[in-house]
Amino acid sequence: MASALLMDLYELTMVDAYLSEGLHDEAAFSLFVRRLPARRNYLLACGLEQALTYLETLRFSAEELAWLESLGRFSRRLLDWLEHFHFSGDVHAVPEGTPLFAAEPLLEVIAPLPEAQLVETALINQVHLQTLAASKAVRVVEAAGGRPVVDFGVRRMHGEDAGLEVARAAHVAGVSATSNLLAGQRYGIPVAGTMAHSYVQAHDDELAAFRAYVRRFPETTLLVDTYDTLEGVRKVVRLARELGPDFQVRAVRLDSGDLVALSHEARRLLDTAGLVHVQIFASGGLDEDEVARLLAHHAPIDAFGVGTAMGVSADAPALDMAYKLVEYAGRGRLKLSTGKVLLPGRKQVLREEEGGVARRDVLARHGEVLPGRPLLRRVMHAGRRLAEASPPLEAIRAHARAELGRLPSAVRRLEPARPPYPVDVSAELSAARRQVVAELHEASHAP
Amino acid sequence: MASALLMDLYELTMVDAYLSEGLHDEAAFSLFVRRLPARRNYLLACGLEQALTYLETLRFSAEELAWLESLGRFSRRLLDWLEHFHFSGDVHAVPEGTPLFAAEPLLEVIAPLPEAQLVETALINQVHLQTLAASKAVRVVEAAGGRPVVDFGVRRMHGEDAGLEVARAAHVAGVSATSNLLAGQRYGIPVAGTMAHSYVQAHDDELAAFRAYVRRFPETTLLVDTYDTLEGVRKVVRLARELGPDFQVRAVRLDSGDLVALSHEARRLLDTAGLVHVQIFASGGLDEDEVARLLAHHAPIDAFGVGTAMGVSADAPALDMAYKLVEYAGRGRLKLSTGKVLLPGRKQVLREEEGGVARRDVLARHGEVLPGRPLLRRVMHAGRRLAEASPPLEAIRAHARAELGRLPSAVRRLEPARPPYPVDVSAELSAARRQVVAELHEASHAP
Repeated sequence: MASALLMDLYELTMVDAYLSEGLHDEAAFSLFVRRLPARRNYLLACGLEQALTYLETLRFSAEELAWLESLGRFSRRLLDWLEHFHFSGDVHAVPEGTPLFAAEPLLEVIAPLPEAQLVETALINQVHLQTLAASKAVRVVEAAGGRPVVDFGVRRMHGEDAGLEVARAAHVAGVSATSNLLAGQRYGIPVAGTMAHSYVQAHDDELAAFRAYVRRFPETTLLVDTYDTLEGVRKVVRLARELGPDFQVRAVRLDSGDLVALSHEARRLLDTAGLVHVQIFASGGLDEDEVARLLAHHAPIDAFGVGTAMGVSADAPALDMAYKLVEYAGRGRLKLSTGKVLLPGRKQVLREEEGGVARRDVLARHGEVLPGRPLLRRVMHAGRRLAEASPPLEAIRAHARAELGRLPSAVRRLEPARPPYPVDVSAELSAARRQVVAELHEASHAP
Repeated sequence: MASALLMDLYELTMVDAYLSEGLHDEAAFSLFVRRLPARRNYLLACGLEQALTYLETLRFSAEELAWLESLGRFSRRLLDWLEHFHFSGDVHAVPEGTPLFAAEPLLEVIAPLPEAQLVETALINQVHLQTLAASKAVRVVEAAGGRPVVDFGVRRMHGEDAGLEVARAAHVAGVSATSNLLAGQRYGIPVAGTMAHSYVQAHDDELAAFRAYVRRFPETTLLVDTYDTLEGVRKVVRLARELGPDFQVRAVRLDSGDLVALSHEARRLLDTAGLVHVQIFASGGLDEDEVARLLAHHAPIDAFGVGTAMGVSADAPALDMAYKLVEYAGRGRLKLSTGKVLLPGRKQVLREEEGGVARRDVLARHGEVLPGRPLLRRVMHAGRRLAEASPPLEAIRAHARAELGRLPSAVRRLEPARPPYPVDVSAELSAARRQVVAELHEASHAP
C-alpha cells in the first residue's frame, strides 16, 4: 500500500473507542468468503504476500497524522497510538495457490483488538483482488487444456494496482505470460505481446506493415484481421515466399470474427503453403466459455490471449469476502444477523484425501486433532513474517498446479459440481457454535 | 501512475518499429466506448484529470530502462528515445462529468505517432476505470432520489488505485461521501462511516457497546443488526431514555434482513419513543435496483451506504473501451474487422438541445460547422495542460449535475430507454468513412 489511509473511516472510530475503553485484549479475526459465486466450484487463495507486506510496513506518516487530526474527530490518544503503530500480531494462513471453499479461512489475524481491527479494509482489499483474479483465471487455464494463455487485460483492469496484482494472480493460476510490463518487471512474470491494429493502419498497405514489422521483429506474431482476416493470412503466406528461409514468423493472430471457421481456414492456408510451424493465436473478447467452445469445435488454435473478461472477473467481479471477529479475550464471538451466520473461534481446515484426491474438507477448531491435511499454518509471528511464508512466485505457481491436481475432476470443471465439494463442520466446532449462540440469547434476554 | 511500465509490451514493440521506419508523422487516436452495456443508457465521462497527469509526468527511470534493456528485445534507438521521452502532443476531451454515448470520443490524442501509441494502455486504464465507476454510481444516486448515498466499497474494489479513483468518480456522479480515508485526504471528498459488527461483538452486551460508543462519539450512527435488528433498535431507545438530553445519536443503521419491513418497524419504534429525529441509514448488498425497490415500497430510509455492487460496477464491470488510430499523416484511418467498424478522422460531438433538454447528438468531423453544443475542447497543448482543463472536484460534480439535468428523463432512468437516445453521424463524416473504405478496398485489391 502506498498510503496507510486506504482504510474505512470506521476502523479508526472503532479503534478510538477501543482505546478509550481499554479493550486491547487478544482478538482473532477470520478472513473468508461467505458464499461462492454461482459459477465457481472453488476459490484459489492468492494475495497473502501483499497482505503480509502490508502488515509489516503499515506506518502513519506525519502528513497522514496531521490530516487525520485536521478532521477533528479523533482523540489525542488515538493519534498518539497511530503515530507509534506497528503491527505486532500473528497471522495463520493457507499458502497462496491453495484451492479453498466457502466459509474456510484464507487467513486469521491474532492480535490485540485495536491492531487487528485497524487492518481490516486493506487486508480484504488485497486478498480479495488476487483471490478473485486467480479464481477466474484458473477457469480459463483449465478450459485451454494445456494451451498457453496470455493475460492481455491490463488496459481494462480497475486501475494500476489491479493491472499489477491481477497479472500476478493469473500467473499463479497457470496463465503463462502477461502483456503488462510492470508485472514482468515487478514479479518476473514472462512478458508477451504481438502488434496492434493501429500499426497496420498506420501503413498504407497491410503487406507493407507486415514486411516492416518482421524486419524489426523476425520471430513475431502477425495480427491479420485489421481489414479481412483470410486476406491477411494470404499476405503472411506471400511474405513467407518473399523472405524464403529468412521468414521466421511464429504465429498469426486472429482477433475478431468466427474464430472456429477462421482458424480452420487459416490453418489450411498456412499448411498448404508449407507453413505448418506457424501457429494460430486467438484473442478478442475471450473467456473460459468461449475458449471451451472453440476447442469443443476443434478450432486449431495453439494459444489464447485473454483480456477483459478474465482481468475483471466479468461474471463475478467480487467475492462475498468478510473479515470477522471470531474470538475476543479468549471467548468465541458471533454475529447472528439474518443470513450471515458465523462460526466462532479460531479454526483449521482439514483436507481429507484418498488416493491423492480430495474427498472432503472439515472445518475444525484451531488445534483440534482430526484426520486430514491441515491447510492453515502460521506465516507471521509478532509482526514479522516467517521465512517459509514467502516462497518465490514460481513455487507458488507449482503449488497451485499440484493442489489443483488433487481436486476431484468435477470440481475443476467450468460447470457447477453436483453435488458440490463437501465441507463439513467438526463436532467440536458445531458444539462451540451452539454454546455461543446460547450465551448470546441468554445475555440478550437478561434484564 | 507510479510506474511508466504500466503498459502493454506491444506499445514498445510498435514504437520500436515506428522509429526504425521513421514513422513519426502526426497521428490522432480516439478514446471511446464501442457499445454501451445492456443496462446503461449513457456514460458519465470521468478520469480525464488522471489521464492528463499521466501524460504530463510520464518519464522512464534509469531502473526501468535498465530492465527494458535486459529483456534483449528492444533497439538502442528505442531505449534512447524512451530515456528522453516526454509527451509533446495535444489532447481534446469532453469535460469530466459529461454524459456521453457509444462511439463518442471521451478524448482524442494528437501527437507524433510513437508518442500517441505509447500512452494507449495507461490512458485506457485510467479513463476506463473512472468512467465505468461514475456511470454505475450515477444510477445509484438517481435511484436514491435525493437521499444521500455513501460509498462503502473500498474493501472489495480492485486494489488501492481503484479504491481511490472509484471514490472520486462516484463523488463526481453525485455520491455524497466515502468511507475511504485516502479518497478523503487526496481529493477532499467528505468522509463518513458508522461502526462495525466486530465492535458490538467485542462487548459482552450490545447495549454496553452502544453506551460505550456514544460516550466517545455522541452524534454517531449505531449499527443495530448484530444479533436481532429490532431488539437493537429497542436498545437504542433504552439508551435514549438513559441519556435524556445527552442522547445525540443521529441514526440507526440496518445492514441485513428485510429492509422494507425492518425500516418501517424501526421507524415506528423510534417515533413512538419520540426519537423522530433519529434517521434510518440502510446498507448491506445494495445496488440501484434494490434502492429503487426499497423506495417503491415506501421504506422510511433516509440515506444509503452502498458498497461492492457500486464499487466494482457489478452488473457491467468493464466497458468496451478502445483507443483507436483514426488519422495518420493527414489521412483518415480505419479498421474493418467484423463487428468493429470505426469512423475515420478527428471528431466533434454536437449536442442539440431544445428547451434545455438534449434531443440528439451528432458525431461530426473536427471543425465541421453544425448546430448544437460542441462537447470536445482542447485541454492540453504541446504536452502541457491548459488551465481550464482541471477544475476543482466540486466544480466537476456541479457540471455533472447540470449536464444530467439536461438529459431526457427516459435516459436517466434505470431501465433501457426506448428508443435509445439518438446519436447521428454527420453527412461529412459518413462521406469520409465511405471514401476511406473505398481506398482500403482499392489498395487491398491492387496487384
